[in-house]
Amino acid sequence: METILHLLPLTPAQQDRFRAAAPHEEHLFLPTNDRRGAVDIPPDWRARATILMGFVPPEDLKTFPKLKWVQSWNAGVDPYLVPGVLPEGVLLTCAAGAYGPAVSEHLLALLLAIYKRLPAYRDQQNTHTWTDLGHVRSLRNETVLVGGTGDISRHFARLCRALGAKTVLGLHRSHTPVEEFDQTFPLSEIDDLLPQADVVALVLPHNADTAGLMDRRRLLLMKPDAVLLNAGRGSAVDCAALAEVLSQGHLLGAGLDVTDPEPLPPDHPLWSAPGALITPHTAGGYNHMEVTLDQLQALFLDNLNRFLSGQPLRSRMK
Amino acid sequence: METILHLLPLTPAQQDRFRAAAPHEEHLFLPTNDRRGAVDIPPDWRARATILMGFVPPEDLKTFPKLKWVQSWNAGVDPYLVPGVLPEGVLLTCAAGAYGPAVSEHLLALLLAIYKRLPAYRDQQNTHTWTDLGHVRSLRNETVLVGGTGDISRHFARLCRALGAKTVLGLHRSHTPVEEFDQTFPLSEIDDLLPQADVVALVLPHNADTAGLMDRRRLLLMKPDAVLLNAGRGSAVDCAALAEVLSQGHLLGAGLDVTDPEPLPPDHPLWSAPGALITPHTAGGYNHMEVTLDQLQALFLDNLNRFLSGQPLRSRMK
Repeated sequence: METILHLLPLTPAQQDRFRAAAPHEEHLFLPTNDRRGAVDIPPDWRARATILMGFVPPEDLKTFPKLKWVQSWNAGVDPYLVPGVLPEGVLLTCAAGAYGPAVSEHLLALLLAIYKRLPAYRDQQNTHTWTDLGHVRSLRNETVLVGGTGDISRHFARLCRALGAKTVLGLHRSHTPVEEFDQTFPLSEIDDLLPQADVVALVLPHNADTAGLMDRRRLLLMKPDAVLLNAGRGSAVDCAALAEVLSQGHLLGAGLDVTDPEPLPPDHPLWSAPGALITPHTAGGYNHMEVTLDQLQALFLDNLNRFLSGQPLRSRMK
Repeated sequence: METILHLLPLTPAQQDRFRAAAPHEEHLFLPTNDRRGAVDIPPDWRARATILMGFVPPEDLKTFPKLKWVQSWNAGVDPYLVPGVLPEGVLLTCAAGAYGPAVSEHLLALLLAIYKRLPAYRDQQNTHTWTDLGHVRSLRNETVLVGGTGDISRHFARLCRALGAKTVLGLHRSHTPVEEFDQTFPLSEIDDLLPQADVVALVLPHNADTAGLMDRRRLLLMKPDAVLLNAGRGSAVDCAALAEVLSQGHLLGAGLDVTDPEPLPPDHPLWSAPGALITPHTAGGYNHMEVTLDQLQALFLDNLNRFLSGQPLRSRMK
């Protein structure tokens, strides 16, 4: 018998769906509304749990001696992939596929806000000022370059098309065609593509190829009036260099849900760089949007069925 | 021979298109970047102009003794429809159809900003604060009620669908079906529809039926967590009542590009009402977005051809 520790904030009716799907296993429900999983888990639950559905701080994983499988509620599980963090033999699956709607909508919200000057209008509103700031932008006939071609990127590409984008290009491992993209390129060709894009949207995982990708040199390869968006991992952008080029008047703006470091320190120049619009890594909150919670539950149920019947798990990371 | 006074900010190449379309008429070009048309027009140009393409302050119309036709760059021409403003016998055409992309995108930008809490995140950014504000909203599976079913409304309906809205209802003169809307209703049925809508977006002209439409009673008929948007005419919403109900915690927010009065006075409570996001009547700026200018030129050229060949004008208002 497995002992499943559920950290998703499930309603009683939703808990019943998991009980019905796995009636012979033990279910422990601890509805958690802290994405870092900083929650008081009773020691005997830690002792018994063989399956963890949610997220706990990486250093806590070793307090689960019987752990066989972690189903994370995060799409990115890089903290668990650091050598030595996940105990030997423990399976790890991520929540790729659950965040497409939430993060793509957030990216579009950031982009449209910058295009329509809403941050400046919000600042004017706070001083009760009614002044027309003039020219606005539109995605119509524009070229969008998306770093990453996974679920979130495809959702975002589709939204850009709905708003009239002419060309949507994707960066991933190869030239293999991906639905919703006009064309895709290996990440190594980014230098040729940056000068063509009106919008560069990053939805990249943290790894050796992506860390520091958008350094000062590449930021300056972007069109002077382009917009940079990042909702993947903060490490993909050199945030000090970004603050500097924005201050020099390069780029129309930057919409960032992730930064490096995180949280962004109070004295970081990016906070007040012209054109910067910053949200605190909230686009992909597992408990922020009903659709996300629905998709996480569907994924967790499917993977639980697969685990119990010995089938391969979806989104296996280890 | 007609004398055409062009106030659109046309490039020399664009001016040539008008000259080519009407080679036997006189063209006077005065590129204007003031939407109120508050521009110095030489007295002899006023004396000669028979066609005005653009907009001048209503009280100035009488300074054009030979005027036959005004092609406005505004979609709403209510200031010219006040009795006595437009000299007897002068034709009036509006720019309906030119603002669909610009205003619908602005409405979506306001809505997504409110849904994703961007105004609050912007305020946090200004104090260098990194705090997760939790739950966000999505148009997925929601019901949108649009006041008006013209070009702007249809564009907005289409964008709402692209973002996953389940039902888009329209309010206009009758039950006549309109493309992009699941169903349409006469404005008189609004009271039955307001409690069903997650978003109420107004793109209504100013007239006796729309002035004061969203009074305190109707604002309270909206769902407690609904969002009100207005990019038509400010008079459709009682802004004092709106500030009051927002302050009482009713409605998730209100995204307003138009207010009553305009400009919104510095001491108006709406400026700092919780959930209010205000832009200063800029969504439909004739010179704010390339696509709008392109569409205005196409409309002006088409109507000029019609005028010169004696065909009926498009978007005739008088």
